[in-house]
Amino acid sequence: MEKLKPYVIGVDLGGTNTVFGIVDAEGNILCESSIKTGKYQTAVDFVNAGVACVRPLIEKVGGKEKIQGIGIGAPNANYYTGTIEHAPNLVWAHNGIVPLANMFQNELDIPVKMTNDANAAAMGEMMYGAAKGMKDFIVITLGTGVGSGIVINGQLVYGHDGFAGELGHVRVDYSKEARLCGCGRRGCLEAYCSATGVARTAREMLAMTDQPSLLREKDPATIESLDVSIAASKGDELAKSIFTMTGMTLGEACANFAAFSSPEAFIFFGGLCRAGDLIMKPIRESYEQNVLKAFRGKVKFLVSPLMDKNAAVLGASALGWK
Amino acid sequence: MEKLKPYVIGVDLGGTNTVFGIVDAEGNILCESSIKTGKYQTAVDFVNAGVACVRPLIEKVGGKEKIQGIGIGAPNANYYTGTIEHAPNLVWAHNGIVPLANMFQNELDIPVKMTNDANAAAMGEMMYGAAKGMKDFIVITLGTGVGSGIVINGQLVYGHDGFAGELGHVRVDYSKEARLCGCGRRGCLEAYCSATGVARTAREMLAMTDQPSLLREKDPATIESLDVSIAASKGDELAKSIFTMTGMTLGEACANFAAFSSPEAFIFFGGLCRAGDLIMKPIRESYEQNVLKAFRGKVKFLVSPLMDKNAAVLGASALGWK
Repeated sequence: MEKLKPYVIGVDLGGTNTVFGIVDAEGNILCESSIKTGKYQTAVDFVNAGVACVRPLIEKVGGKEKIQGIGIGAPNANYYTGTIEHAPNLVWAHNGIVPLANMFQNELDIPVKMTNDANAAAMGEMMYGAAKGMKDFIVITLGTGVGSGIVINGQLVYGHDGFAGELGHVRVDYSKEARLCGCGRRGCLEAYCSATGVARTAREMLAMTDQPSLLREKDPATIESLDVSIAASKGDELAKSIFTMTGMTLGEACANFAAFSSPEAFIFFGGLCRAGDLIMKPIRESYEQNVLKAFRGKVKFLVSPLMDKNAAVLGASALGWK
Repeated sequence: MEKLKPYVIGVDLGGTNTVFGIVDAEGNILCESSIKTGKYQTAVDFVNAGVACVRPLIEKVGGKEKIQGIGIGAPNANYYTGTIEHAPNLVWAHNGIVPLANMFQNELDIPVKMTNDANAAAMGEMMYGAAKGMKDFIVITLGTGVGSGIVINGQLVYGHDGFAGELGHVRVDYSKEARLCGCGRRGCLEAYCSATGVARTAREMLAMTDQPSLLREKDPATIESLDVSIAASKGDELAKSIFTMTGMTLGEACANFAAFSSPEAFIFFGGLCRAGDLIMKPIRESYEQNVLKAFRGKVKFLVSPLMDKNAAVLGASALGWK
């Protein structure tokens, strides 16, 4: 077997920023740098800026001979093809198929693998986080959207076409009044349990009740999930009940996911998890109430320990070793 | 690598009959025999009867030196532990944990592996049926209950505890009026799309409407899914609409399953599939209407080609080669 080179590069390609980091085999980020993702109108401009950003980092650690590979985590990325397909949040990829892995590989002459951001998060948990030693677990990312990375038998689930693991778009409400989701369908988990879903729940509850709340000090149209978190942390009952409802919906959904792959743990990642037990307790309780008897009391519900580290860069970097 | 012996034994352990078959490497069943599962009060009696039934078959093909292994497909069976746990339809296993694989292995001195019946069906499809050459597919068995065997990356999904793949117990109706399922919860897929679910839909539709139907010739309490199939095959509109409703519910559920593992195909197995396009067409249509855009038009919906063969014996036998 050929000897591995000492470093990999992890790339966290988000809607706002794209962060490049050099990572060693122990998961230390030696140096990092970033560009603004949305500043570029074409994929070529974006790649050129990315290459200009990462080249100095590569030189700093001794040149490309020291780099085993590059792993990119990006929205709507396909592991099999190395392409980003129809990514609504990326100007230069929202209406087509961008062969981003090949584009970086051609410029840098280093092997590049790409996967979607939630799958990268799952790899990060498996190598450096809450899932060390686990072979069956599901990471659920609670961000602007709801994403997921599913690991079964120690392997990420990509599915037949590379797009598996879209648990944010499992429907949890089949009624006609179900919320419209960004994907154009109704009743998706994401419409309720993402940061935007939480803000929407807040607006609905403020409109539907007279319950006093710190949230009433804000213009409802500007309320964000962070406002709900802050109010809840101050003991605001209405804000707390929003987290309870969100957690209950997540727990019900996880009960269905357990019937699919019977994981050892669900690992939650993202700003909403900072609410701690306010959201984790209803997740657990609603899961246990809703799950098939055979699965009761068996599953761990964990918050990612990597949220304050650069988990997305770490997770993506894991692909660079392959 | 040690040379494989020429035969395996497949055991289809069902609520009514238990069938033992000797199978060669090409999937031919050389000989078979069966016992009545429910005739025995204890697991020991059942195993003794099974051993007495299978021994003559083993002698017929040249003795146990010719047998590579035994695979058992059984309800509520756990692949990891070789046990049957709390199987409601088995008198001698409905209230406890029976180490059936070990019991047979001790008596016959041949390695025994066991998995649940739907997983065995999935192995059968992969080796001899509709899933030859596929690495990602889901088998859904429409029998007295709704079972499933999920294959990802060419491997059966057992999950952390051996009980993964219970898609019959994914909830498809979260309303208070959702049907009670045999598992004690409400709104499970099985409560709508099993043979018993179809019979129940028939009774509900007969009670709720005045629509003329051949099914009105029967006492509603005795209607079975077979009656609905027969009436539908004669062009009975009400019976046909029952299959449409059942198929639509299955299609909606499959749209959620696709978001999980993005399979190449869904393969349906069981008596209800004999209705052909009456059920398969609404499954496909409802799937395409409900699924996330990224998955549209990509998935095959197939009926198992093994239903007239002894698919359960074949599927279970595949475990014997491991």
